[in-house]
Amino acid sequence: MVDISTRVYNHNWKIDPIVRSVLDNDFYKLLMAQTIFRRNINTVVKFSLINRTQDVPLANMIDESVLREQLDHIRTLSLSRGESTWLRGNTFYGERRMFDPEFINWLENFRFPEYHLERKGDQYELTFEGPWIETMMWEVPALAVIMELRSRAVLMNMDKFALQVFYARAMTRVWEKIQRLSKLPDLSIADFGTRRRHSFLWQDWCVQAMNEGLQNRFLGTSNCLIALRREVEAIGTNAHELPMVYAALGSAESDEQLAAAPYRVLADWQKDYDGNLRIILPDTYGTKSFLDNAPHWLASWTGIRIDSGDPVASGEAAIAWWKRHEQKPEDKLLIFSDGLDVEEIERLHTHFHGRIRVGFGWGTLLTNDFRDLQSDRRLEPISLVCKVVSADGHPTVKLSDNPLKAVGPEAEIERYKRVFKVGEQQVRDVIV
Amino acid sequence: MVDISTRVYNHNWKIDPIVRSVLDNDFYKLLMAQTIFRRNINTVVKFSLINRTQDVPLANMIDESVLREQLDHIRTLSLSRGESTWLRGNTFYGERRMFDPEFINWLENFRFPEYHLERKGDQYELTFEGPWIETMMWEVPALAVIMELRSRAVLMNMDKFALQVFYARAMTRVWEKIQRLSKLPDLSIADFGTRRRHSFLWQDWCVQAMNEGLQNRFLGTSNCLIALRREVEAIGTNAHELPMVYAALGSAESDEQLAAAPYRVLADWQKDYDGNLRIILPDTYGTKSFLDNAPHWLASWTGIRIDSGDPVASGEAAIAWWKRHEQKPEDKLLIFSDGLDVEEIERLHTHFHGRIRVGFGWGTLLTNDFRDLQSDRRLEPISLVCKVVSADGHPTVKLSDNPLKAVGPEAEIERYKRVFKVGEQQVRDVIV
Repeated sequence: MVDISTRVYNHNWKIDPIVRSVLDNDFYKLLMAQTIFRRNINTVVKFSLINRTQDVPLANMIDESVLREQLDHIRTLSLSRGESTWLRGNTFYGERRMFDPEFINWLENFRFPEYHLERKGDQYELTFEGPWIETMMWEVPALAVIMELRSRAVLMNMDKFALQVFYARAMTRVWEKIQRLSKLPDLSIADFGTRRRHSFLWQDWCVQAMNEGLQNRFLGTSNCLIALRREVEAIGTNAHELPMVYAALGSAESDEQLAAAPYRVLADWQKDYDGNLRIILPDTYGTKSFLDNAPHWLASWTGIRIDSGDPVASGEAAIAWWKRHEQKPEDKLLIFSDGLDVEEIERLHTHFHGRIRVGFGWGTLLTNDFRDLQSDRRLEPISLVCKVVSADGHPTVKLSDNPLKAVGPEAEIERYKRVFKVGEQQVRDVIV
Repeated sequence: MVDISTRVYNHNWKIDPIVRSVLDNDFYKLLMAQTIFRRNINTVVKFSLINRTQDVPLANMIDESVLREQLDHIRTLSLSRGESTWLRGNTFYGERRMFDPEFINWLENFRFPEYHLERKGDQYELTFEGPWIETMMWEVPALAVIMELRSRAVLMNMDKFALQVFYARAMTRVWEKIQRLSKLPDLSIADFGTRRRHSFLWQDWCVQAMNEGLQNRFLGTSNCLIALRREVEAIGTNAHELPMVYAALGSAESDEQLAAAPYRVLADWQKDYDGNLRIILPDTYGTKSFLDNAPHWLASWTGIRIDSGDPVASGEAAIAWWKRHEQKPEDKLLIFSDGLDVEEIERLHTHFHGRIRVGFGWGTLLTNDFRDLQSDRRLEPISLVCKVVSADGHPTVKLSDNPLKAVGPEAEIERYKRVFKVGEQQVRDVIV
């Protein structure tokens, strides 16, 4: 039987929206938004979307009007009653009432602010300027919209059966990855793949496959909407934007304020969250310098997230740092989240297993690995990012442990390198 | 939106029927039935279903009551109005009115006759006794029911996602086979996979995939119902049961009548069908002896189907035979239908392409290749056949070009070998 009403409903769509909920966003955005809500409600920033894979001409693949329709649709969204109930009633990281009623009230009234879209050559310039707490909500949905529009553009001319086999192959690939991972003892892994996913439906499928294939070794997903619908844990901690904005604000005052900024972020964070949410992201201005200068109290935090540089070296540096501060590494947690795929997960797991708790935040190569599934290379992963570029008029800077991931004006980068005493850095390919 | 009515309809099913139409049967059964209708309406035969893969204990895998329910359901079927219209109005092999109104009237009133089912050790004994024209209709549906019940039994305990990936893998495999075949110039291939299919839905999917992937190189399907629904050609010619029954009846009279039986079949067939339906199936009592003793008029027929023995040697023997009778091989057609898979199709195509027209009837390894897709081997292909074993009380015999495929009482086999002057035969593995 054909469900006529569904068919008729579908052919009345003006667009097929990619983002259909305020919660189709990463969980750490809400955690960070709450901390911004409490302390930096008036900070004005600018976010900018950049395609680091310049040889993929996104503006030739995606029609501007189609992109505008999707972004405009996002601006119509607001938190639904059930979504609000979930935020108020659900347990996050073992805790009820993770979010203040005041913050949830704010989120209920939140609407995505304006965007600025302009074609520049074969790329789009997409920026968001305004209150930090509002513009920061755009990062993940904006990336997801562009990624999915690219997927749709590539798949548009495929026949029905070719499409079915295309997804059959992709499912087989994901499932084989999961089967391989299921052999790792004490694995602990989460989906971090919202921003560069192939599509919403595909991420949703991947999460369900992880959940069935890995069971309790699958921690959950960074995607709030999927966590809500599939009744799995919402996962996430904090991101570079916090130290970047704190540093930009501090840099306006003095080198000392700049140097102290990354630790001020964590001092604030510590007032808001505890337990497994106390995860240090040390690489914004170089992991080595960050750890060398870190205050003693920070060593009591639960873990460190390794998001750039050589992950084994960084993990070892973290272990050595904890030992210097009389902490037991076996009680600590290392979270890896940089360009992971199965081989790398296996390698890191083998290296660290038994010495320290290890977690993996698996992103693009979980939710968007369609390499070789199509005759041309138009579905290869691309490195698309959306970063904060200024705060209250001051440019932001990120150095990271890989110079190819550095962001900011050249002169500022040099100043930050001096202030944070960043020496030689190793260049590593950026895939995603 | 959930289609509530479909869900409610589904959970009211007593059984999920495997065969839902009289036309879910091979096309050559109808062609043969019409020729039987015209000449042998009173012949009484017995068909018997045999699992040649004795180490697969079908009776342990399939519940007897479930098997009975499926067979009983088949006995409730009758030709629908639309199906009858299709038989009356459709073009088969380029011809309208392939079937007489009298025959279609008979088919409209046809109901599947009684069956006899008995468990014997780990196997079932399933036989059909009665008028040839009625019992012969059981062969394909009976095989398909047992094959699909086996599939269901094996898949019953799989989780939803494991099942989805299982079929994703199988689809990928079929599609890769089709992509390989699409590289063969002037390929001509049909689906002959009804009897040993994994399931009806799977065969239906395979036919659609072949149709999309090979386009006009895909001739059609032997399955009438799928041909009707998917609007592709219904394909088929004739089977061993015709010479087997004619021979059994002739053997009762004299060796001469026995020796002449295979040619009498074709003399009758020639009155009913022409063009591409004039395909000789020469291996019932040995291809060599058949061709050596064939009347000159038979060489004018369109082609020969190679269904046992060494297919290259048999094809070469056919070409040599046509040449001896002053026929041009390039106008002739060789149809291969014995245990084909992609490698074998490529090999035969390469060997014969350009010298003679070649067609392939691809069966079990199209519609039931789930080898290695499951951890145990319970979905490996099995050699399940349903053969006529007696006609008007006389045992039937099949020798074929492979002694492992011989059927009949030992003494009768010896007599047939003598009468048909069958010498040494080469043993070949029977996979399907």
